[in-house]
Amino acid sequence: MKGAEALVASLVEADVDVCFANPGTSEMHFVQALDEVPDMRGVLALFEGVATGAADGYARIAGRPAAVLLHLGPGLGNGLANLHNARRAGSPVLCIVGAHATGHVRFDAPLQSDITAVARTVSGWVHTTGDVRDVASDAMRAVAATADQGGQVATLVLPADVSWSEGATEAPPLPRAEPFPTSPERLAAAADALRAPDAVILLGGPALTARGTAAAGRIAASTGARLLVETFPRYWETGAGTPRLDKLGYFAEQALDQLDGAHSLILAGARSPVSFFGYPGVPGDLVPDGCEVVTLADAASDAETALEALADVVGGGDVAELAPHHAPEPGPGPLDVRSMAAAVAATLPERAIVVDESLTAAAALAPALQTAPAHVQLALTGGAIGQGLPAATGAAVAAPDRPVVALQADGSALYTLQALWTQAREQLDVTTVLINNSAYAILRVEMTRTGADGSESADLSGPAGRMLDLSAPTPDFTALATGFGVPARRVETTEDLLAALRWAYAEPGPHLIEAIVPSPA
Amino acid sequence: MKGAEALVASLVEADVDVCFANPGTSEMHFVQALDEVPDMRGVLALFEGVATGAADGYARIAGRPAAVLLHLGPGLGNGLANLHNARRAGSPVLCIVGAHATGHVRFDAPLQSDITAVARTVSGWVHTTGDVRDVASDAMRAVAATADQGGQVATLVLPADVSWSEGATEAPPLPRAEPFPTSPERLAAAADALRAPDAVILLGGPALTARGTAAAGRIAASTGARLLVETFPRYWETGAGTPRLDKLGYFAEQALDQLDGAHSLILAGARSPVSFFGYPGVPGDLVPDGCEVVTLADAASDAETALEALADVVGGGDVAELAPHHAPEPGPGPLDVRSMAAAVAATLPERAIVVDESLTAAAALAPALQTAPAHVQLALTGGAIGQGLPAATGAAVAAPDRPVVALQADGSALYTLQALWTQAREQLDVTTVLINNSAYAILRVEMTRTGADGSESADLSGPAGRMLDLSAPTPDFTALATGFGVPARRVETTEDLLAALRWAYAEPGPHLIEAIVPSPA
Repeated sequence: MKGAEALVASLVEADVDVCFANPGTSEMHFVQALDEVPDMRGVLALFEGVATGAADGYARIAGRPAAVLLHLGPGLGNGLANLHNARRAGSPVLCIVGAHATGHVRFDAPLQSDITAVARTVSGWVHTTGDVRDVASDAMRAVAATADQGGQVATLVLPADVSWSEGATEAPPLPRAEPFPTSPERLAAAADALRAPDAVILLGGPALTARGTAAAGRIAASTGARLLVETFPRYWETGAGTPRLDKLGYFAEQALDQLDGAHSLILAGARSPVSFFGYPGVPGDLVPDGCEVVTLADAASDAETALEALADVVGGGDVAELAPHHAPEPGPGPLDVRSMAAAVAATLPERAIVVDESLTAAAALAPALQTAPAHVQLALTGGAIGQGLPAATGAAVAAPDRPVVALQADGSALYTLQALWTQAREQLDVTTVLINNSAYAILRVEMTRTGADGSESADLSGPAGRMLDLSAPTPDFTALATGFGVPARRVETTEDLLAALRWAYAEPGPHLIEAIVPSPA
Repeated sequence: MKGAEALVASLVEADVDVCFANPGTSEMHFVQALDEVPDMRGVLALFEGVATGAADGYARIAGRPAAVLLHLGPGLGNGLANLHNARRAGSPVLCIVGAHATGHVRFDAPLQSDITAVARTVSGWVHTTGDVRDVASDAMRAVAATADQGGQVATLVLPADVSWSEGATEAPPLPRAEPFPTSPERLAAAADALRAPDAVILLGGPALTARGTAAAGRIAASTGARLLVETFPRYWETGAGTPRLDKLGYFAEQALDQLDGAHSLILAGARSPVSFFGYPGVPGDLVPDGCEVVTLADAASDAETALEALADVVGGGDVAELAPHHAPEPGPGPLDVRSMAAAVAATLPERAIVVDESLTAAAALAPALQTAPAHVQLALTGGAIGQGLPAATGAAVAAPDRPVVALQADGSALYTLQALWTQAREQLDVTTVLINNSAYAILRVEMTRTGADGSESADLSGPAGRMLDLSAPTPDFTALATGFGVPARRVETTEDLLAALRWAYAEPGPHLIEAIVPSPA
């Protein structure tokens, strides 16, 4: 059996049956194997960043890895930003990078570069297959590695001759790591910390399921502890019927305010909070002075069981306070971020998957979504923008029976807009609300915050301001989406947005709604 | 003076006065410095791969580096593929990667990653500035380093606090390396090699100027040596009035045929030829058995002077045979690759810069362009597709008085299509001929060539074939270009293509012509 066929067949046996791909010549035998192993679903992307972001979104919803097929070092480079986000999410992703045939490496041909050096910066596991007899077992080790550390990227470098040579055999799947149980010592320390006058539980990573948040809600009801959600959760089951939780603010000042007065901070699946960027004169560590930090569960732990155990230790029979369903339609009129958010919340389908790369609009969306129908939110975990549309694509592949809603800032969308084409080809049920404010609005805010312009409000009239401006020309997202085969509408009023959302949800396949929303900055 | 201001002011003094940028929060002080140093021209890109590809194109035309401003590791990742191409071109590029403030690194904030590990894979020089007092002198060392080895990428990692801190002073430019003169020994060896019965001179890198090719033409006239041009030249002055030269073929079989019988191969700025990819049973080294390989000049050498010296040694007063101007208009009818090529050649403006990422269409374009009006060709040097539109953008910034023509394959265009927006914003005189065959046509050829499907002609009807197909849906490039603010027309006949080319050349600013050309495969 050829190496590529043994590889693909073994992956399917290991439950890796989706491959997001942007292949080249060195991957032709892998591609050909898709004809031999029909249970592997190949999903073509026009750009590697779409493929890697889709694998991240897929993993977060499916709870298991998809494969990503990339073409040598440049293909890996193009996919690197969204692998960075996957790394920060702790998403299991199997990255397969095709490489020159083993005997061709000595020629330093034009596409030769140091693949493993780049791969190591995002992967917990990297290996180059050296012989066709190893390819299936190497792949099984890679799949198993994706489950380590609570989920990580594993990269298998696949020389072309390993794919095309005969002599491979399939290999059986290996056991995958389960989340670690939290130790009795950690549980006791967390219970102790809850006795502090102002205890805060920061929920993140694997804790943000309905089970995890319900347990946290019971703890809060019993102890008076405050609950916060990490700023960029990888997977959060939220909305009506779940405990009402606020996110830790993005800007350091907001987060410092929220944590002010806390005597203890209990980490449940989240990391200790730090500022996203450093700013002159602003602390990077957001934990208040004198506040004790206790880890109940880290990203590799079974945070849900840990929270339930903690609830049993500290709780009476108290019941968590749950968010009601309250999402009234906004009245007619020109759109702003608040009415846009209300319209999204009012029309949100049950069990939707909401992919949030809304950046400056997020502040308005968060409270509106708290009381929208129950849904899952996927956030941009690593700060590498251009993740929303690809992640929505992968989430839709993972859950064909659930509507996916991408809340997408304009500047970020333009990094990986090619995701729309994959949505069209695969007829994925994704509704993109493209929030068009014609600017890198977040950077306008940051320009002032970093003190870069030395004033309270940035002067945007000169060459510097022009670098943060997306007008002249303003991208026409309706034309762009149509060009990629996705039906699109442009709306400027709440009534038109509501109608467009209903249109998008009613029809199968992808849709894009370009919502013209003045920048709040 | 703040670090960012000293940095930007020093760059301008060192003749680096264009910065292709896709900045984020950590680069806000650099952006702000654009207001303080108006001689630095900031050119915004919507995606980093556009910025890095533009810097490559700029360098090839201007002969000096532009700066590229990127945002942390993910920004570098997004720009990596076109930095790979720049590395393979030997283009001088100054890459500035903004990073977290020095004191913020310890928090491992979401955007933290190993920037230098990634940068080293494409850069000849990498350094992280550690103190604001060093930033301007570090930048001057980086600029000087871009000239080493005949041209390379130099990467300066710029922590945010280095940019925002006071205490910097400007630094004077450092001397830059000049091309090495070729040694008398190399010259003598080359002259000896020319006495072989069938001598071939392979021209590449710095040799492909009018001066270099004229000297090569004299040598050929005097000695009967055959002249070939490397497959993917970084910069080639060609067309009517220059020696008529064929490129070495892309496919190994073609190149082996061209080199068959050669007793000596003289390298003038080119590397010894190797197959682009390895294939089962095809040699990777394309030099015929028994053929002596002699390096007259490598990429870091003064290849033009070396060729002139060699012409003086071996020549009588023989005159090079020059290509005539012969570019008749094709007759009316449906487009095919041949008539498309003829239409481009017939209408090509004088002194045009032709950026060639035409892939499968290149075989038809090459002979047509040989006798078109004199022009410069820039090719895809590193095989990382998605370089054409960005390089055309940078070339147009470098030469505002010259028309730029991008001959662009469809699949490759979709990697970095955002370049069109920068062309629109800067009103660059770029005409893109988008060759739409609705397929990764080159991969259909490669699928058969690699023997992946085990047959003479690939079966493209199954899942494998679907991964090489860009229809369902076919991207509408006219809509996409319009969405980015570039006027566009779709043509299916030669008469419409001729009219569209004249329209595009007559109007200032960028235009895109979507030429529907059936795949030759």
